[in-house]
Amino acid sequence: MQLTAINGKQYLVEGRELTDSLLEKYLPPVSAEPSSLHEAMRYSALAGGKRLRPILCLSAYDYCGGKTSGEDLPVHFAMAALEMVHAYSLIHDDLPCMDDDDLRRGIPTCHKQFGEAMAVLAGDALHVVAFDLMARTGSVSAVRELAWAIGTDGMLGGQVADLEAEGKSEVDADEVVHIHRRKTGALITASIKIGAILAGADQQRTDALFDFGQKIGLAFQIVDDILDVEGDQEVLGKIVGSDSKNQKATYPAAVGIETAKSEAQRLIDEAIALIEEPESNMLVYIARFVGQRES
Amino acid sequence: MQLTAINGKQYLVEGRELTDSLLEKYLPPVSAEPSSLHEAMRYSALAGGKRLRPILCLSAYDYCGGKTSGEDLPVHFAMAALEMVHAYSLIHDDLPCMDDDDLRRGIPTCHKQFGEAMAVLAGDALHVVAFDLMARTGSVSAVRELAWAIGTDGMLGGQVADLEAEGKSEVDADEVVHIHRRKTGALITASIKIGAILAGADQQRTDALFDFGQKIGLAFQIVDDILDVEGDQEVLGKIVGSDSKNQKATYPAAVGIETAKSEAQRLIDEAIALIEEPESNMLVYIARFVGQRES
Repeated sequence: MQLTAINGKQYLVEGRELTDSLLEKYLPPVSAEPSSLHEAMRYSALAGGKRLRPILCLSAYDYCGGKTSGEDLPVHFAMAALEMVHAYSLIHDDLPCMDDDDLRRGIPTCHKQFGEAMAVLAGDALHVVAFDLMARTGSVSAVRELAWAIGTDGMLGGQVADLEAEGKSEVDADEVVHIHRRKTGALITASIKIGAILAGADQQRTDALFDFGQKIGLAFQIVDDILDVEGDQEVLGKIVGSDSKNQKATYPAAVGIETAKSEAQRLIDEAIALIEEPESNMLVYIARFVGQRES
Repeated sequence: MQLTAINGKQYLVEGRELTDSLLEKYLPPVSAEPSSLHEAMRYSALAGGKRLRPILCLSAYDYCGGKTSGEDLPVHFAMAALEMVHAYSLIHDDLPCMDDDDLRRGIPTCHKQFGEAMAVLAGDALHVVAFDLMARTGSVSAVRELAWAIGTDGMLGGQVADLEAEGKSEVDADEVVHIHRRKTGALITASIKIGAILAGADQQRTDALFDFGQKIGLAFQIVDDILDVEGDQEVLGKIVGSDSKNQKATYPAAVGIETAKSEAQRLIDEAIALIEEPESNMLVYIARFVGQRES
């Protein structure tokens, strides 16, 4: 399962296909009991998506000289784990008691399809399979990095702050950055750092990649906020305007849409400046993609 | 934090106190953000309970000659992790879309106290802190053992089977055993096996302890079913008769209460027979306690 891409666009396509094949391989099969639970897990995890986190992990691993030929490599376990964790977080975020969303990636959300109890359990199950896969890398550092990214200092902390900021009349840019860094940024940053850890990168490069991840993680979420205002519902596969409807703390609401756009671009430029030999580097291509994406 | 107990009863008390102090130490503080989430996590994890899983882990570790003096030992991280995972499972099980319970350990359930969204997130957060702690043991085998115990072959699989069996008019003993082994038995078995792994036990002893765990794990749940019929609500801290009300698949419903009692005793006797030098052995005491407990 070695990628043959010679340009960034092809790399994104091949990275997505590789991720899909890894998920197919490492998700428990519907033929095994409990089949209803496995079906719900697969429904959400295999529903498409950009697979940005696993692709970032792989490209950081490549950049740090990790071995990419062979089956069941540690980086493969990590890639599947990162996407499963992302899927788990979306399932729980969409629940009626949370954001109460009906549509995700163009299809009914997990609880609309399978009921609330099964959605809670499918999220929990993806969460635990992800940790099992990360442990299969053999690196407790990678396990701890994942736990940091999705714990109360990371994704869950961001989710709580997001819920608590909902409906506030005044939105402060610093507060939005603080929420975004944790809710989305931490897992994106960890995806990159785990790639570096598994490739055995030195501390200097790992630290530079951490900074790179922080910058594009924040840029990613700012672009997400912008797309919720200006995006095309068909292309996005989800309902636009929901942030505004739910009175979410977003970056455009805090600083205006034009400043939000220039800020995202600034972050991406700064991130790219951290990469050595940026020509033909897939991390650079992905950073640019994050700034220009339409879904 | 070395236990000084010279008898089983004292061991259970000291083991519970040690577990409480470890939870206090390793749970994120309410003084740190997100304080509302940390408060909900602590509310449920520190609400008391027998702390059976950590105590089993410690006693298996002792039995296998693990080092018990010192602070922040791998076994301490594992003990806290096991109890946090147990607390997470109770929070999600109690949710309105699951068992819809209002009372747990004599106090309102997490969602009654903090709302549904916070309860989902508090369960998720305990789940992830548990994996971080298990990774701090330095043993990826321990991480994988935990993941097995609470995954779709273990606790979550049992929970799904339990939900799907609800309301069935015919209850089959084999099916109940199958549910119990996964829903409760797997984590109890893993608690013991992780103690053996962290103490560096040989394969023969680890296998014997796995069998021991399977037997007392099943006995524990059969006694739980019996207590739901015959127990004292005040002593239990939860509402009795809820299994019958919810038409749960229980062992007494399948085979009758007397057969259930003798079966639990048989399992405990068989478990004890697996322990070398059973005199003054804490595992033996705990096995007897499982058979005789009233809460």
